[in-house]
Amino acid sequence: MSWNRRHVLSLADFSPLEYDTVLQTASSFREVLTRRTKKVPTLQGQVVANLFFEPSTRTRSSFELAAKRLSADTLNFAASTSSITKGETILDTAKTYLAMGTDMMVIRHKEAGVPQAIADEMDRLNVKVGVLNAGDGQHEHPSQALLDLFTICSLMDVEKPRSSLLKGKKVAIVGDILHSRVARSNIWSLTATGAEVYLAAPPTLLPKEFADFAKDSDLDRKLFIHWTLEPALIDADFVMALRLQKERMTSHLLPSLREYHQQFGITRDRLKLCKPEVKVLHPGPVNRGVEISSDLMDDPVLSLISQQVTSGVAVRMALLYLMGGGKVG
Amino acid sequence: MSWNRRHVLSLADFSPLEYDTVLQTASSFREVLTRRTKKVPTLQGQVVANLFFEPSTRTRSSFELAAKRLSADTLNFAASTSSITKGETILDTAKTYLAMGTDMMVIRHKEAGVPQAIADEMDRLNVKVGVLNAGDGQHEHPSQALLDLFTICSLMDVEKPRSSLLKGKKVAIVGDILHSRVARSNIWSLTATGAEVYLAAPPTLLPKEFADFAKDSDLDRKLFIHWTLEPALIDADFVMALRLQKERMTSHLLPSLREYHQQFGITRDRLKLCKPEVKVLHPGPVNRGVEISSDLMDDPVLSLISQQVTSGVAVRMALLYLMGGGKVG
Amino acid sequence: MSWNRRHVLSLADFSPLEYDTVLQTASSFREVLTRRTKKVPTLQGQVVANLFFEPSTRTRSSFELAAKRLSADTLNFAASTSSITKGETILDTAKTYLAMGTDMMVIRHKEAGVPQAIADEMDRLNVKVGVLNAGDGQHEHPSQALLDLFTICSLMDVEKPRSSLLKGKKVAIVGDILHSRVARSNIWSLTATGAEVYLAAPPTLLPKEFADFAKDSDLDRKLFIHWTLEPALIDADFVMALRLQKERMTSHLLPSLREYHQQFGITRDRLKLCKPEVKVLHPGPVNRGVEISSDLMDDPVLSLISQQVTSGVAVRMALLYLMGGGKVG
Repeated sequence: MSWNRRHVLSLADFSPLEYDTVLQTASSFREVLTRRTKKVPTLQGQVVANLFFEPSTRTRSSFELAAKRLSADTLNFAASTSSITKGETILDTAKTYLAMGTDMMVIRHKEAGVPQAIADEMDRLNVKVGVLNAGDGQHEHPSQALLDLFTICSLMDVEKPRSSLLKGKKVAIVGDILHSRVARSNIWSLTATGAEVYLAAPPTLLPKEFADFAKDSDLDRKLFIHWTLEPALIDADFVMALRLQKERMTSHLLPSLREYHQQFGITRDRLKLCKPEVKVLHPGPVNRGVEISSDLMDDPVLSLISQQVTSGVAVRMALLYLMGGGKVG
Repeated sequence: MSWNRRHVLSLADFSPLEYDTVLQTASSFREVLTRRTKKVPTLQGQVVANLFFEPSTRTRSSFELAAKRLSADTLNFAASTSSITKGETILDTAKTYLAMGTDMMVIRHKEAGVPQAIADEMDRLNVKVGVLNAGDGQHEHPSQALLDLFTICSLMDVEKPRSSLLKGKKVAIVGDILHSRVARSNIWSLTATGAEVYLAAPPTLLPKEFADFAKDSDLDRKLFIHWTLEPALIDADFVMALRLQKERMTSHLLPSLREYHQQFGITRDRLKLCKPEVKVLHPGPVNRGVEISSDLMDDPVLSLISQQVTSGVAVRMALLYLMGGGKVG
Repeated sequence: MSWNRRHVLSLADFSPLEYDTVLQTASSFREVLTRRTKKVPTLQGQVVANLFFEPSTRTRSSFELAAKRLSADTLNFAASTSSITKGETILDTAKTYLAMGTDMMVIRHKEAGVPQAIADEMDRLNVKVGVLNAGDGQHEHPSQALLDLFTICSLMDVEKPRSSLLKGKKVAIVGDILHSRVARSNIWSLTATGAEVYLAAPPTLLPKEFADFAKDSDLDRKLFIHWTLEPALIDADFVMALRLQKERMTSHLLPSLREYHQQFGITRDRLKLCKPEVKVLHPGPVNRGVEISSDLMDDPVLSLISQQVTSGVAVRMALLYLMGGGKVG
């Protein structure tokens, strides 16, 4: 096991060893969560500030709970986007929370790069504050991809979830790839751990240029792009549906939700193209009957959605623990 | 003492034994609240999620404080009503908090039946999560009626508040009965414990059909309906004024606040019709000079409003304790 | 050392002994904040309610953190100004939090006098609840002035910050004096501890009548008023810039931000008029390039802005501790 990161901003340069460290640490925290008293004193007296410049209830709750279960104190900052308009001001807000004594910052912002900019500033100031990217624009959402990885690996080996289990697995990612930070982070983690990733979406949500991303990144033998659903589903081990922002339709990127569901919606029937043991994931919240059919979503055998949420708390505990200098191994 | 409920959704089927269990448990927690360190470790490591789909500061604070004094961790979810529109999505939100590891959910929603639907889903999933109705539409608000009961019974016997003390007492409930979940829950608790309940309101806020509710429920000998104030007040032991939603006037159910106060406002003078020891209750927040005259509201002898708020924390501690499987007796 | 206050509402009648008590108590809490576990059990089981009728993220976070580090439970009340319109209702809200069992109330309101009115009501009710003014209209913001004092005195003697260090120091306060509660509280604390205070602002933001305030208050030999920047800066030991509300311009009190910066903006160049060891303070948040030039703001030698934020937590811990009856000395 190995961990040398103060910040978790992107998965682009994560090593298999780092993935394994997160998976094993999360696994030990999952054990904590099965006890009646689901708490450890690890971060007692430490302060975790949730700086959510973009509103989010579920992700904020997940981080807040992870911090509380490590016995940290939490501060919640929820900005109305109107009150903060300039990049400098965001840095000043972060520096204010730093000066108050914050030990770790969990940051969500609608613009890509803000968590990185804050982390750079913390490093420049030479303070030991960890920054965790909880979603920045259309860039990355690393904790989501790590909880997806943990969910998948735990399914294959609940005792020893490890990244090598992904080797040769086929994962389909379906939906609004273009605007999805979840997709980007998952592409990094899944290809790095040996899976093959098949993207499927209408061309407006998966432009030709996206293929260049694969080539540039030396991912071209592990990342495949399709504008129809079927080739991505055939023999897939895992199908990951992405949340569809309804706003996309008003900007003419989508015809209608009904048509989208007809072409790219995941249903029980369509899953017959996949491996018999296929599982479905979704980062939530789900538009029932759009990305996934309603009955499939509630299927306790096929759907991993609920496990993803549970994994989220354990994985975020692991990340805060590791960033906070927790001993590894 | 006796307790077999996982959820507290309605008082319609509460037994006198259950009322007594709540009263006695609340009584022991009231003792805790008089200490300097007003905390017990009962729910340490447990998570209480306050899912308030309808905004409320005071009720949410009361539940939050009750949970914290039992040493639980709390999560607050405050939905803008706009973001959540469909029943299924509410269930999905609840299931997300379930998957995060929530042990108890306190739910408020503007539509009747939502807490019941969530409780049903939890039972269907066979998870040991308790659901507490913190107000659903015009249906019920059981913790409010229980704190009213605790306030009244404690007044009569502070050492041993018990439901039998209500036997033969006359309680007037005055105001917007039609739209009041507080009234509905109080009708159940007060009649079940032996009190006689006299409702008084203008016909627009207490329609003829409401009398059928009494007959259907076999309450016809304990529940009386009046369209003027005086008969309800005569010889009353307790007068409960309900909050008037000012929105009612725009929908032509009320003439003006001044006229309402003239006909149904509780004043020191009008209380002369009641028993000499009469006390006044109000669930708050009060529109001063509308439901109750301002001087009466501040009268430390006649008004129980402040005691109601204090009772609220003890009663909610009791409910969370009992739902969480706390030992009875 | 000496402390007899239940409430902290204004600095107008603070004695040098009281300032020293706050400074020394804050100093001992600053030591706590350097430990890995930055927490003390002082207020365990006590409830601190933050009643912010005017929104504020940074001040509320600072008080919340101070309370949590004293192991208190916190309740946050954030009012949309629309829902509460009448003075009585604010008292009723405070009384509701009192009845829930709140031990201390931290109150911010856009109207001057609200914290005082709530404190008066608590005293009238003869309850042992402390009220702390976290900013009321254009009246006072005592904890801000106390943290400024602590920051300055700690700079001069980190081991023993004491008010006598201010004797004979020249402090310039620059900006929107007229509308600033921070300026008013600082005028009291700085003159009481022996400093000379030079106010500098355009006449629209520092009207002639303000000089009467000085005379009335017997401050006329310690408080000086200037409508240009230079005389205030000459030989100053400390320069305190105030936040400029951009709304002032729409009401024609200010020409433009650019012109304001040209005439009253604090820059590295202008600081050459001051003592060589001069330091710059600002209560935050700063409009970069308006009140202070951006490079000066980030200068770790000249700017005390970050130390002010850090001092804020220690000073607020000290105030809550002292108000809560913590032993002095």
